[in-house]
Amino acid sequence: MPQMISHMAESPPPTFAEYAAELQPQVDAALSVRSELPDGCPAVLREAIRYSLLGPGKRLRPMLVLLAARACGGSTPAAIPAACAVEMFHAYSLIHDDLPAMDDDDLRRGRPACHKKFGEAMAILAGDALVTMAFGVLAEEIEPPRVAAACCAALAEAGGPRGMVGGQADDLAEKDANAGVDLLESIHHRKTGAIIGVSLRLGALVAAADDRQCSALAQYGRRLGLAFQITDDLLDVRSDEQTAGKRVGKDRERGKLTFPGLFGVEKSTARAEQLLREACEALAPFGPQAAGLEALARYVLERSR
Amino acid sequence: MPQMISHMAESPPPTFAEYAAELQPQVDAALSVRSELPDGCPAVLREAIRYSLLGPGKRLRPMLVLLAARACGGSTPAAIPAACAVEMFHAYSLIHDDLPAMDDDDLRRGRPACHKKFGEAMAILAGDALVTMAFGVLAEEIEPPRVAAACCAALAEAGGPRGMVGGQADDLAEKDANAGVDLLESIHHRKTGAIIGVSLRLGALVAAADDRQCSALAQYGRRLGLAFQITDDLLDVRSDEQTAGKRVGKDRERGKLTFPGLFGVEKSTARAEQLLREACEALAPFGPQAAGLEALARYVLERSR
Repeated sequence: MPQMISHMAESPPPTFAEYAAELQPQVDAALSVRSELPDGCPAVLREAIRYSLLGPGKRLRPMLVLLAARACGGSTPAAIPAACAVEMFHAYSLIHDDLPAMDDDDLRRGRPACHKKFGEAMAILAGDALVTMAFGVLAEEIEPPRVAAACCAALAEAGGPRGMVGGQADDLAEKDANAGVDLLESIHHRKTGAIIGVSLRLGALVAAADDRQCSALAQYGRRLGLAFQITDDLLDVRSDEQTAGKRVGKDRERGKLTFPGLFGVEKSTARAEQLLREACEALAPFGPQAAGLEALARYVLERSR
Repeated sequence: MPQMISHMAESPPPTFAEYAAELQPQVDAALSVRSELPDGCPAVLREAIRYSLLGPGKRLRPMLVLLAARACGGSTPAAIPAACAVEMFHAYSLIHDDLPAMDDDDLRRGRPACHKKFGEAMAILAGDALVTMAFGVLAEEIEPPRVAAACCAALAEAGGPRGMVGGQADDLAEKDANAGVDLLESIHHRKTGAIIGVSLRLGALVAAADDRQCSALAQYGRRLGLAFQITDDLLDVRSDEQTAGKRVGKDRERGKLTFPGLFGVEKSTARAEQLLREACEALAPFGPQAAGLEALARYVLERSR
């Protein structure tokens, strides 16, 4: 059985930064082309879409698509449309999340949130445009059509009322910091984990992965997603406003459920570390082809330190 | 060349009400099943989705899907998922349109708008859920997958930034009642016409229509869509609040561009009549199979009288 060969090699394994340097420019270029919308899109709507889609960001979800495709032996160019789709979907969810009626955040990625820059109405519409564009890119560009339809179905399930939107609805309703860890994990699994999971799933689909590969990626994704949310909560506690690029400490102000709030910083950090170790263990069947996904897991841990 | 045989027959052609009596219960039952969301959807989100999706309404767009499929020789059961998808998409657009930051309507179909009943945050999420569900239904249920992917692509184009969302953005920006008829028609073509057009297109796609049929339906749809918007403007002028089920006369209050505002009631009525005659003429190639679409066009005219 293949082991995590990249860990055993003599030279240090490539870092997330090295993968990012290779892949992020490709993702950004692809997103830019697909948001030019030359005919029929009002200028201010195009501007709002591009402001939110092309702004600074780690492109973590597109990286997951591309690195999952690579782990399964697929090519980067074939996975680029799916990478664009998940970033469009993510951008839409951030725009709507930041709205005054929702999380009411004025800052996003160190800049004014979309609704602060373009007004609430245009922000609602830019989000609506981006969710629609995400499905359009999948449906139009992924080959063969059978895989395109499967990708659309997977994104709809992960992003819909039983996935991301459902998690957001529960998150908005849940203001009781004394609620249990099960509810907290359930919210995060849907709110953050579902899109992380579908990013890996789309990468697997375009790479024509087999069931064993899909199942390994799903295990990796479930652990990574929860670890990602824990480290996000830790960032909220630790960072100052400048580092995080958004208002921090507000989870606590709002009495929101968080992992550090439930377990303290130390135990939460240990939980994240354990989850990320387990995430990497799930990648064992892929061997060195999954080195990028391992690097990404290490990055998620390091960013919260 | 086939003529409009239904008009030439001795018994009067079936009315829209007769088609509606046959098809609306099927649509409503299908929408109800697809919005039960038994696992993982928060109860209040499900309630908001179903409140907006299953409330009173004419189901005009699902009827267009089913009647277009019928005109092209397709079956109603095969077209039901596409009919559900356009109604979900329509319901999402109404929820977001009614939000305070958008058109700020408190009443919809004679009942409190979704955001009045469930709050703004839940209304935003219910809309987000419905747009996502629309693509999910198409991707998961339409066969073969090639047609499912084509349906997703068509809905994304019609509903996206160059279609419906773009029309809404221009409509929000356009408060100058002195702007010209070209802009007015361009806004309506995208804001209302695009979803009417794609309803017919999805019906054609699931019925495996040929190019000539698709082109005839597109002509019918373009004329019907514009006529529909003119009669909507006329309703706004003429109706009292109870009849329309929403606050009326507010287009004028807001200084919005409308057809009666530009041309007066009489000329606008004549324009709608002419467009609907031309819409029915475009159906000539279908013969009696298009009787349902003809009845729908007559209904659009009659409802504004």
